[in-house]
Amino acid sequence: MQFKLGCELSYTLTAPSTFIFNIGVAQNTRQQVLDETLSITPTIEMEEYVVPETATRFLRVNPAAGDLHIRYNALVELSHVWADPLDIPETPTTTLPLQVVPYLFPSRYCQSDRLMNLAQAEFGDLLPGYSRVTAICNWIYDNVAYLSGSTNQHTSAYDTAVERAGVCRDFAHLAIAFCRALGTPARFVSGYAYQLNPPDFHAFFEAYLGDRWYLFDATRLVPMAGLVRIGTGKDAADVSFATIFGTIEMTKMQVFIDRLQPPETSEAPSDQAVSTA
Amino acid sequence: MQFKLGCELSYTLTAPSTFIFNIGVAQNTRQQVLDETLSITPTIEMEEYVVPETATRFLRVNPAAGDLHIRYNALVELSHVWADPLDIPETPTTTLPLQVVPYLFPSRYCQSDRLMNLAQAEFGDLLPGYSRVTAICNWIYDNVAYLSGSTNQHTSAYDTAVERAGVCRDFAHLAIAFCRALGTPARFVSGYAYQLNPPDFHAFFEAYLGDRWYLFDATRLVPMAGLVRIGTGKDAADVSFATIFGTIEMTKMQVFIDRLQPPETSEAPSDQAVSTA
Amino acid sequence: MQFKLGCELSYTLTAPSTFIFNIGVAQNTRQQVLDETLSITPTIEMEEYVVPETATRFLRVNPAAGDLHIRYNALVELSHVWADPLDIPETPTTTLPLQVVPYLFPSRYCQSDRLMNLAQAEFGDLLPGYSRVTAICNWIYDNVAYLSGSTNQHTSAYDTAVERAGVCRDFAHLAIAFCRALGTPARFVSGYAYQLNPPDFHAFFEAYLGDRWYLFDATRLVPMAGLVRIGTGKDAADVSFATIFGTIEMTKMQVFIDRLQPPETSEAPSDQAVSTA
Amino acid sequence: MQFKLGCELSYTLTAPSTFIFNIGVAQNTRQQVLDETLSITPTIEMEEYVVPETATRFLRVNPAAGDLHIRYNALVELSHVWADPLDIPETPTTTLPLQVVPYLFPSRYCQSDRLMNLAQAEFGDLLPGYSRVTAICNWIYDNVAYLSGSTNQHTSAYDTAVERAGVCRDFAHLAIAFCRALGTPARFVSGYAYQLNPPDFHAFFEAYLGDRWYLFDATRLVPMAGLVRIGTGKDAADVSFATIFGTIEMTKMQVFIDRLQPPETSEAPSDQAVSTA
Repeated sequence: MQFKLGCELSYTLTAPSTFIFNIGVAQNTRQQVLDETLSITPTIEMEEYVVPETATRFLRVNPAAGDLHIRYNALVELSHVWADPLDIPETPTTTLPLQVVPYLFPSRYCQSDRLMNLAQAEFGDLLPGYSRVTAICNWIYDNVAYLSGSTNQHTSAYDTAVERAGVCRDFAHLAIAFCRALGTPARFVSGYAYQLNPPDFHAFFEAYLGDRWYLFDATRLVPMAGLVRIGTGKDAADVSFATIFGTIEMTKMQVFIDRLQPPETSEAPSDQAVSTA
Repeated sequence: MQFKLGCELSYTLTAPSTFIFNIGVAQNTRQQVLDETLSITPTIEMEEYVVPETATRFLRVNPAAGDLHIRYNALVELSHVWADPLDIPETPTTTLPLQVVPYLFPSRYCQSDRLMNLAQAEFGDLLPGYSRVTAICNWIYDNVAYLSGSTNQHTSAYDTAVERAGVCRDFAHLAIAFCRALGTPARFVSGYAYQLNPPDFHAFFEAYLGDRWYLFDATRLVPMAGLVRIGTGKDAADVSFATIFGTIEMTKMQVFIDRLQPPETSEAPSDQAVSTA
Repeated sequence: MQFKLGCELSYTLTAPSTFIFNIGVAQNTRQQVLDETLSITPTIEMEEYVVPETATRFLRVNPAAGDLHIRYNALVELSHVWADPLDIPETPTTTLPLQVVPYLFPSRYCQSDRLMNLAQAEFGDLLPGYSRVTAICNWIYDNVAYLSGSTNQHTSAYDTAVERAGVCRDFAHLAIAFCRALGTPARFVSGYAYQLNPPDFHAFFEAYLGDRWYLFDATRLVPMAGLVRIGTGKDAADVSFATIFGTIEMTKMQVFIDRLQPPETSEAPSDQAVSTA
Repeated sequence: MQFKLGCELSYTLTAPSTFIFNIGVAQNTRQQVLDETLSITPTIEMEEYVVPETATRFLRVNPAAGDLHIRYNALVELSHVWADPLDIPETPTTTLPLQVVPYLFPSRYCQSDRLMNLAQAEFGDLLPGYSRVTAICNWIYDNVAYLSGSTNQHTSAYDTAVERAGVCRDFAHLAIAFCRALGTPARFVSGYAYQLNPPDFHAFFEAYLGDRWYLFDATRLVPMAGLVRIGTGKDAADVSFATIFGTIEMTKMQVFIDRLQPPETSEAPSDQAVSTA
């Protein structure tokens, strides 16, 4: 499944600043970047670092005062792993890969240590595994209102568990916190999302089940097969699309994604689990 | 229904201190103090203030350094108002007595402003009135673990809504916050509680329904008819049994309550609503 | 000192709603309402309740769906009590009037119980009394940025102590919390403020010192002598200018205050303490 | 400088459980493990994972119900890097190694995003570099009371900034949050600490300055040269000495560390900066 995607970001800087962008799609065996261009105006030096474990890409530029314009385009091929949800069990803590264990720990926006009782009360009686994470997503979809502007960059899963309103990142944070509280490793994924309307960067999450990371999205806003990974981390704190040191004003932000020649035969039934990790 | 009750409190003071006690039972037409003694050793001057609206009694003493021992005894007659829960409607905000309106406002431990969505989601579809407050109590009983030592003096309804564990004051705070979030005035009551085991001061709450304040207790620890009111306030911040200015050590705290000559005929069926205000 | 003041508020209601306004100036011996008009369009019944202790006025109307327009005008005479700050001592807890004691307790937005150590560290070494409350105001002025839009209706003193930005109500909340943490009763006052620019409702606070409540305003936005009291309470939760039950849209809000015939001789030196309670 | 150290931990398990210990000292060029033994009773399989970036060691065991006893001993040689604090500058964000950037992001216990203003107000005027981190440590030492039992596992830097009391992990969390808020990468280190009294696991932190990580400890409880690293992470969430899945009771915990043949000549002046990373 191929996607043509990218973004355009413009800023006005009143002084020399440092930007660390996280907008490039991650590359792994399931997500191939077939073509990619990045243009920055004015032309300045760029430096990229790829986090070994997650393939998250940090791109630094140090522009002078004035206007900065960045345009990223990529052609990406997703080779999804499909699986029958019924066949995806919980991985017991006795055999969980130890490098996955840190995704059980609480993080800035996912205070799983404080949601233990709530998670147990709501999901503790369910059979562990893929279906329980689905139940978490359903609970969030049913109990949390998707409401633009209802939260801000400080809002955490702890807040959302009480206040019951938020946007995609809040949905992901609460789901992750619930998973960790139940002993299921979970992590945050930022990405481009096909058919997201209005177009924007999207946030969803992964849970480690069976022997891999499966994608979930409690917002139900877009098809799972159209999620293209940018950053992967403990939570949104790790994968902000732009970390900025300096006093700037954003003047433009545009995100786009299209699907190329949709090959009907590659479609998976909508009831399949999806993995791209 | 008559109760013989009281408490004994001992402290060691390293310097002259001020104590403001709130241990005397409130007097109103439904709760008559037939007899009452208060002894303080050493003998020092006492000053009492009775809050006009709630009959809450603040007793101040300014002891010197050394040991302080206070013993309170009272013989109290409760004349309960009983009512059929089915006959107790919500009072609409259009006609709610305006002096009751402040009990709709959020307070230190009852952040009803932040529990609006949760309250709506859990109880918004229920018919307003006594039965909805009962549903709130049932929800708390079912979803919050009564666990000594699980919380402290800073714990609020916001925390309990997420952490799902607490003691009697936390149960009352969460119930009050839910009520207010739904437009039902609610307030905190501290008191002596017949058959509470182990004996201690107890915390419960009242909701304003129909044309009066009805008692509720989400803990289900004691019979409602055995609740004897001490302080009434927005929440626990208003009715601490002892507010202390000074460096002291509490060396003894004992609370007791017994029922006198239980007159079988005065018993109400357990399914009746109770009011003592 | 006389002021002509008032406000105009317009709303569009999609359904019958209840409004409880708190916009009328409080009347006491220091603040006389010489003339007052209140007009509501369409003409509907109004009900007013005056809180005995504070003279705060709650005005209820139950308008039908459609447009609601309310206009309040008042001519107010302030008879300030002036005092030399050096002559205003702390009132010891041993003799503090007991009806003032509840203003030592923590409230929704003033969690004095959690600011004890911070208050002690910053102000514990200062001489108690008027000058210490002034030091608290100075600290807030120096350490908290006045920044419109930086906070919302959930922001509390706890947050402001860390985040160090806010508006007038946040300044008042933090000051109140510090005062209470130090054993000085403090309360929240909403009001009209002469020379506030842009015109709006204002928030300030009072501390109980000597034998009365003195006005303070950590924002330094307006002259103290031009503060006209509307509501008095534990914090902003008690004196919202409009508590609304229903789905409405505010379409206009205008606040105005002018001074009449400024009599030069009544001016107090700017270094005097002011009380209107 | 050589240290003989270790710990003994005993648990009683009511059911089969999973333990992930983080008690073994990390190995790097500055911290050599010369000898090491780990004994578990009863004898069961162990699995170890070493986090590539930080050398933090996770050791998993899956004991059956009953008693579990674990004893760890190590002989460790520290080869400190000493540096003159005056020679250690801030690394500008323009050239900061990108793999260090994630240590600028907020984490569970270090909400640097919410401490921006406080950090700027207290430290914004200071010259960046080693001396500013020292100023942060001094501020914490002066403004936060070291008080056993004053906090719990949920306490974060946000709380400590207000409540001003805590233990070693709280001191480290607040320091880390301040550093990140100022643009200085900082991370949490757990370890054995020579001369800590009473003996226990200790928590301190590192800031990235110049071209390496320097050790800091705002508690001033122990000599910096005697800090032996166990785990390194964003905050305490990443390096708990025991992550336990199961219902267990800890029956013993003992930590010990001694210095071998103190070679006088290797001592650095106490005013030197120290690095072991």
